[in-house]
Amino acid sequence: MAIVGAGPSGLVAAYYLAKGKVKVALFEGKLSVGGGMWGGGMLFNEIVIQQTAKRILDEFGVTAEKFQEEYYTADAVETASSLCSAACRAGARIFNGVTVEDLMVREKAVVGLVINWTAVEMAHLHVDPLAVRCRFVIDATGHPAEVVQVLQRKNRLTFRTPEGTFQGERSLWAEEAERSTLENTGEIYPGLYVAGMAVNATFGGYRMGPIFGGMLLSGEKVARSILERMKAGE
Amino acid sequence: MAIVGAGPSGLVAAYYLAKGKVKVALFEGKLSVGGGMWGGGMLFNEIVIQQTAKRILDEFGVTAEKFQEEYYTADAVETASSLCSAACRAGARIFNGVTVEDLMVREKAVVGLVINWTAVEMAHLHVDPLAVRCRFVIDATGHPAEVVQVLQRKNRLTFRTPEGTFQGERSLWAEEAERSTLENTGEIYPGLYVAGMAVNATFGGYRMGPIFGGMLLSGEKVARSILERMKAGE
Amino acid sequence: MAIVGAGPSGLVAAYYLAKGKVKVALFEGKLSVGGGMWGGGMLFNEIVIQQTAKRILDEFGVTAEKFQEEYYTADAVETASSLCSAACRAGARIFNGVTVEDLMVREKAVVGLVINWTAVEMAHLHVDPLAVRCRFVIDATGHPAEVVQVLQRKNRLTFRTPEGTFQGERSLWAEEAERSTLENTGEIYPGLYVAGMAVNATFGGYRMGPIFGGMLLSGEKVARSILERMKAGE
Amino acid sequence: MAIVGAGPSGLVAAYYLAKGKVKVALFEGKLSVGGGMWGGGMLFNEIVIQQTAKRILDEFGVTAEKFQEEYYTADAVETASSLCSAACRAGARIFNGVTVEDLMVREKAVVGLVINWTAVEMAHLHVDPLAVRCRFVIDATGHPAEVVQVLQRKNRLTFRTPEGTFQGERSLWAEEAERSTLENTGEIYPGLYVAGMAVNATFGGYRMGPIFGGMLLSGEKVARSILERMKAGE
Amino acid sequence: MAIVGAGPSGLVAAYYLAKGKVKVALFEGKLSVGGGMWGGGMLFNEIVIQQTAKRILDEFGVTAEKFQEEYYTADAVETASSLCSAACRAGARIFNGVTVEDLMVREKAVVGLVINWTAVEMAHLHVDPLAVRCRFVIDATGHPAEVVQVLQRKNRLTFRTPEGTFQGERSLWAEEAERSTLENTGEIYPGLYVAGMAVNATFGGYRMGPIFGGMLLSGEKVARSILERMKAGE
Amino acid sequence: MAIVGAGPSGLVAAYYLAKGKVKVALFEGKLSVGGGMWGGGMLFNEIVIQQTAKRILDEFGVTAEKFQEEYYTADAVETASSLCSAACRAGARIFNGVTVEDLMVREKAVVGLVINWTAVEMAHLHVDPLAVRCRFVIDATGHPAEVVQVLQRKNRLTFRTPEGTFQGERSLWAEEAERSTLENTGEIYPGLYVAGMAVNATFGGYRMGPIFGGMLLSGEKVARSILERMKAGE
Amino acid sequence: MAIVGAGPSGLVAAYYLAKGKVKVALFEGKLSVGGGMWGGGMLFNEIVIQQTAKRILDEFGVTAEKFQEEYYTADAVETASSLCSAACRAGARIFNGVTVEDLMVREKAVVGLVINWTAVEMAHLHVDPLAVRCRFVIDATGHPAEVVQVLQRKNRLTFRTPEGTFQGERSLWAEEAERSTLENTGEIYPGLYVAGMAVNATFGGYRMGPIFGGMLLSGEKVARSILERMKAGE
Amino acid sequence: MAIVGAGPSGLVAAYYLAKGKVKVALFEGKLSVGGGMWGGGMLFNEIVIQQTAKRILDEFGVTAEKFQEEYYTADAVETASSLCSAACRAGARIFNGVTVEDLMVREKAVVGLVINWTAVEMAHLHVDPLAVRCRFVIDATGHPAEVVQVLQRKNRLTFRTPEGTFQGERSLWAEEAERSTLENTGEIYPGLYVAGMAVNATFGGYRMGPIFGGMLLSGEKVARSILERMKAGE
Repeated sequence: MAIVGAGPSGLVAAYYLAKGKVKVALFEGKLSVGGGMWGGGMLFNEIVIQQTAKRILDEFGVTAEKFQEEYYTADAVETASSLCSAACRAGARIFNGVTVEDLMVREKAVVGLVINWTAVEMAHLHVDPLAVRCRFVIDATGHPAEVVQVLQRKNRLTFRTPEGTFQGERSLWAEEAERSTLENTGEIYPGLYVAGMAVNATFGGYRMGPIFGGMLLSGEKVARSILERMKAGE
Repeated sequence: MAIVGAGPSGLVAAYYLAKGKVKVALFEGKLSVGGGMWGGGMLFNEIVIQQTAKRILDEFGVTAEKFQEEYYTADAVETASSLCSAACRAGARIFNGVTVEDLMVREKAVVGLVINWTAVEMAHLHVDPLAVRCRFVIDATGHPAEVVQVLQRKNRLTFRTPEGTFQGERSLWAEEAERSTLENTGEIYPGLYVAGMAVNATFGGYRMGPIFGGMLLSGEKVARSILERMKAGE
Repeated sequence: MAIVGAGPSGLVAAYYLAKGKVKVALFEGKLSVGGGMWGGGMLFNEIVIQQTAKRILDEFGVTAEKFQEEYYTADAVETASSLCSAACRAGARIFNGVTVEDLMVREKAVVGLVINWTAVEMAHLHVDPLAVRCRFVIDATGHPAEVVQVLQRKNRLTFRTPEGTFQGERSLWAEEAERSTLENTGEIYPGLYVAGMAVNATFGGYRMGPIFGGMLLSGEKVARSILERMKAGE
Repeated sequence: MAIVGAGPSGLVAAYYLAKGKVKVALFEGKLSVGGGMWGGGMLFNEIVIQQTAKRILDEFGVTAEKFQEEYYTADAVETASSLCSAACRAGARIFNGVTVEDLMVREKAVVGLVINWTAVEMAHLHVDPLAVRCRFVIDATGHPAEVVQVLQRKNRLTFRTPEGTFQGERSLWAEEAERSTLENTGEIYPGLYVAGMAVNATFGGYRMGPIFGGMLLSGEKVARSILERMKAGE
Repeated sequence: MAIVGAGPSGLVAAYYLAKGKVKVALFEGKLSVGGGMWGGGMLFNEIVIQQTAKRILDEFGVTAEKFQEEYYTADAVETASSLCSAACRAGARIFNGVTVEDLMVREKAVVGLVINWTAVEMAHLHVDPLAVRCRFVIDATGHPAEVVQVLQRKNRLTFRTPEGTFQGERSLWAEEAERSTLENTGEIYPGLYVAGMAVNATFGGYRMGPIFGGMLLSGEKVARSILERMKAGE
Repeated sequence: MAIVGAGPSGLVAAYYLAKGKVKVALFEGKLSVGGGMWGGGMLFNEIVIQQTAKRILDEFGVTAEKFQEEYYTADAVETASSLCSAACRAGARIFNGVTVEDLMVREKAVVGLVINWTAVEMAHLHVDPLAVRCRFVIDATGHPAEVVQVLQRKNRLTFRTPEGTFQGERSLWAEEAERSTLENTGEIYPGLYVAGMAVNATFGGYRMGPIFGGMLLSGEKVARSILERMKAGE
Repeated sequence: MAIVGAGPSGLVAAYYLAKGKVKVALFEGKLSVGGGMWGGGMLFNEIVIQQTAKRILDEFGVTAEKFQEEYYTADAVETASSLCSAACRAGARIFNGVTVEDLMVREKAVVGLVINWTAVEMAHLHVDPLAVRCRFVIDATGHPAEVVQVLQRKNRLTFRTPEGTFQGERSLWAEEAERSTLENTGEIYPGLYVAGMAVNATFGGYRMGPIFGGMLLSGEKVARSILERMKAGE
Repeated sequence: MAIVGAGPSGLVAAYYLAKGKVKVALFEGKLSVGGGMWGGGMLFNEIVIQQTAKRILDEFGVTAEKFQEEYYTADAVETASSLCSAACRAGARIFNGVTVEDLMVREKAVVGLVINWTAVEMAHLHVDPLAVRCRFVIDATGHPAEVVQVLQRKNRLTFRTPEGTFQGERSLWAEEAERSTLENTGEIYPGLYVAGMAVNATFGGYRMGPIFGGMLLSGEKVARSILERMKAGE
């Protein structure tokens, strides 16, 4: 089971999958995890979440304060580090500084990742990658939906989405975006799931605001889907 | 009321709106305002304006000297600083060093801006933006018409223009360009106005020469349109 | 009369036009003139020309030595500096360090240039250009055919060529390229001529080899065409 | 109380000071905390610690496995995120993305920090910093000992060290380095403490190997020294 | 009379000198004037001034609000543009986009400037500068004291300062810095004055905080010194 | 006979052709040969080959150890240097530091190369290339299939492939890729052969894994095809 | 036994040491080995060697042709690859893509290397190195003598050279340089040897010309010295 | 006889030496010759010369117009190209695109140059230079006096100048500079001459203004000195 991207949705998914006794490898291109969470909004390092996602912060032991009806704030640094710390302690293994540059495929399925050191790519060195097999891949790379895009650009295939292809995200409409992110979280091609902001980018949904509830809930949902499927013996 | 871009048309619009008691926030990506006005033409820091726009320089207290029939010259530095100084004193609030990277939208309207520190973008840091609601947005970003372009690139929509889409500016034909800039200044999508050189870029008009009259007049016109609409209780 | 690009075809055209008493302004983006001639082929600073173009080197007083049937060699540095020296002495005025970034147009004609300091463009400064009117423009910018391309990219128009649009140059076939360069040198849009390698790029001809005869002959031909037209009182 | 640098010694110091009810502000130049810990040694993301420091990992709940006499290994990602998570929960406030570019001084003492957005410095923008007063400053910036160096470079002063000036670190001798790091952790100028690798750089000690025990112990020691001094009513 | 640097002290000096009927040329390396004032402190675009300097803001018509005993705040954008607008209207001529790269000297005096386009320097082009004679030069280039430093680096001479040489600024001590800036504003070599932050850098004084009163007062003082000297017929 | 690219397939082809007494010139853009072989997989400098290709390593005297059924490993540095050393000793002439930037063509055939110093291209200098005639060209440039792509981009032509045009490689499926690489190695346009990874890129085949057998076999096959054709007197 | 730098002297030393049954690890910063040998002189890829060194090329099976009294030429690509191929086959293990950034030391001796991925350094990532113990280190890094310089810069010590410190190489005097290189090849500090061009840089000798004999002989000499010492049971 | 630098003094020296039947090789780092002459002063491409140097422009056939007592102006482009054209025709051989990176020396004399492709240095490739012997070297590299500086930096020697070492140029004092340039033009070390601006940089003289007479006269003087010496049979 591989997750690509250690932002909020990827870390939450890793935590719930590891807690469910699934062997999880999370690949993060940067050396540090947390994605865009560290800087909050415009460097004011607080994050906002909706009441519906408050229980997930509670699960991770992150303090959140109510600041208006339905919304809570939390310290961005505390949240980023606590999500990661908990995912590791639950048993997820994080491979940081590793870039996923391509996928392993078969006739009509994703069956693994093609990885390399990020340092090698930043240094523009000509070094071959290695290939790693896995049962499922979750694209949790955020806006760029890197895994979805590389799969589409290099192969001729159709996703299980209304349009069948990667759409790119629209302008910002927070409420609508939160709703559709959660709704569309799931498998879009045999072996490939999307979670977090990669969902909206793939489906052509609206952009989410600097509110992180949807990403936490999407991470939880993708984990539960896979756990159920595994329990069902798939 | 938000204006994007503190070049001549944006500053003039801000001045007249603020004088008309509208609360104006002007967002400028650079730290300094004035756009391309500081360098005059090819670094010879004089600007040229037509007689029809002379009264606007007078309004701002900028000295202009006649140099041939119908044309006046003014000092580029004096003009840039005086437009800004007057806009601030009239009550406009300028947020400099702030980039508008996207828009807030609803089903068929622009309802706000998505902003970030320019420093964050220049440093290629991964930090989320903040969203700011506003009644109307004026794209006064000049040649690139950045607001118009981001709206079109990320969403599927039709502008209130002959072609319905962003056209890009043609080669230089100063007289024709001055005329069409003024004529086409206005609202091109619910909530979104264009002013100054962004007008010609959007409508596929000819490029303006290093003559600034049209930009001043366009800034004045867009302000008057909005003031009338507000007076009309819209 | 404006020429854009001070490579071999531009300098030769400038020389013959100035000798014909036409007022010639040659705009060159770099500080130094000569284009790609200084480095010869792969830095071995000799150039090769065909016998048919030998008389042009003679006209400029450049020593050329026969090295095989039909072909002569000359020193690249001597040739580049001598073409320029002679063009200046004949009365052409060279504006170096000046980039042509756009054209002045009317309904269906080119009527001038939009210029800026190359230094301003290299420094990515936001400074407006100036506009310069002229009777004809010769695009002698070589491979990129910069003037032809900016005209096509920014306007909707048809060139007087078989395809009507800019084609881009094919792979190398020296003999065929030399022939078609000379044949197609001429006016491709009211007010706009092409000379030298810009000809083949525009017409989709084959690439020339490191043999400079065709460029010298093309420069001479474009000058003669314009001189005749002017003599004819156009 | 201000700490500069959120690597292992800075985070451990922040944790113990916050637990001791001291108000702690930790400034980190990058957006993410953890310093050089994420990449382990040569990107193999495991860290090694000595038995003497094992109790500190235990305090933070980080799992460590014995791999040879006197030495334990831990997951680098788990350690980095857990140190930070615990420091935040203990009450330390981390200001990330903030660079300390200078110090506030009085006749013979450090009395505060001069800070700016790291993004502003990366973007080479000309923006003034702000000044923040504090009782003590801990330089936990590692190898470069940035705070110590800026103080020495800009002022004429003598540190409470054998040489009186910044020495720079020697080549690697792990055992000797671990010993001297711990021994020399402390106040080197009124108001300025050093901890972690900044200690050896300041005192001209040997370089530490990729073994993190000394840094954890140094962070603990500097916190205890300050807590005692505060308890003593200083 | 030449001033180098269009930050607060340079603009204020230009204003008072121009009002005193002195012919003033102000050279600014960037295209826009205002120096580091636009960004306020850490991009929060407000500036703070002391009560003693309030009368200068009043002179320029800038609104300032009292926010605590002895201190006022003003909008950074309004202040920057209003200082410049007033200096221009008083008759000062600003040459922006022009870098002062060296000085004209005689046996023991500064007698002019060596200038070039900033664009040329940014583009790393090899173009000679021009030389401009003037009666006095004011170095108002802030922290780097560029004029003072180039004079010292290229010549063997002694300044009229306690140390005789450029010292470089110390760490931040606002009160002390404001006092010594004003005290040391003046002529440090025949024909060369220093004003604003360049004063402290030259004399080895403490760094000023993000409080602009001292710079305004220093600009006023340097102007008055020169006006008196000129009135005295020097 | 010219080969472009000194990676494994190019070096093996050069070796067998030179052994077959064909005059071979191998052009390599970098100074060093070996392509992507030096770094093994993710910098672990071992390479893997299939049993079917073992006899080629034996031919070059490279030690390979069996590590599982059907697969052998070899030292990456030993393999890269030994392939090159043997090719040189067999008589192939390697022109390193030379970039192939275009092709020489006739009506319907490739008849040579257009080359330049790589240093000239890296330095962005404007220097003309030289042209070199040859009987056949093998594109052994790997993933980018540079020769194939430049031919297609600059000319209007059809390759002898199912699609007729360059397809670009798909995601990774090692077994399928090894098979199709070998099958499709051959002439795709009169005078132009493809070998190694350039084969799959051209035919739209799957990506090969970090297993080098297919590349060695493809290099051998392309050499044998050309040798037979030459023996047949073509 | 560690060698730093896989240029000609390092490869020759590695070959003779490995042949002498010493366990040799050669660390090379680049991915490819061969140092400056690939490009010959000014990209003309031939190398020149003196008759005295001809027997070493013979040992490696490299063809050399006499071109004047006392001097032979060889193909640069064949030589570089053959030296490496032979060193590997003799048993030396080459770690390429690995930078030696510091040394392990004890009171008065070098006892190992501090290494990191070159990719990490090129990417400016903050990742700790690893330390590797070894009996002797040979600095074969050429002109910069990187190992010698890092040892001197970071520690206070005296080399066994006439001056006691690193001197830097003088201008070119080939004959004198060849002689002194060979003479001074040897141990300059307990545990640290110099070979090849690093010798002259360390001793302040003259620069060698593009003649490689001295480097081959120096590599052989350093290997023999160490082999004798080891045979002597040291 | 080698000259380094093809600016005005180098080209004039080359012309007179070649006319005197000396075999001259002129090495220029850039592809184009002319040095800083193309851009005139601040891109206004006119140059100024004193009456005393007028006869040299006459010798080269460059038109100069009197514009005030003692001073003439000429077109910068015409002058640069005509100096070069005449030097080539007189027989000087110009090696452009070639960098002189070091010198060949003997015990107490300069005996040649160490050269490389400029492209190789710009591309940061590791390629060895070639060495070229010559009787004398003239450093005509302008401000940086590159040859003088490399000789001093790499060797321990004393120049035949008052100070014995390279001094660096002072600030601008045109009249004094013109005088001392001419006076000090000559041999400063056995085999090494300085001419043009390199003279003042070496002797610590004042900087010349944008007036080119001194450079032309210095080029003439250095040529005459060497011609006399050669005639004298040295």
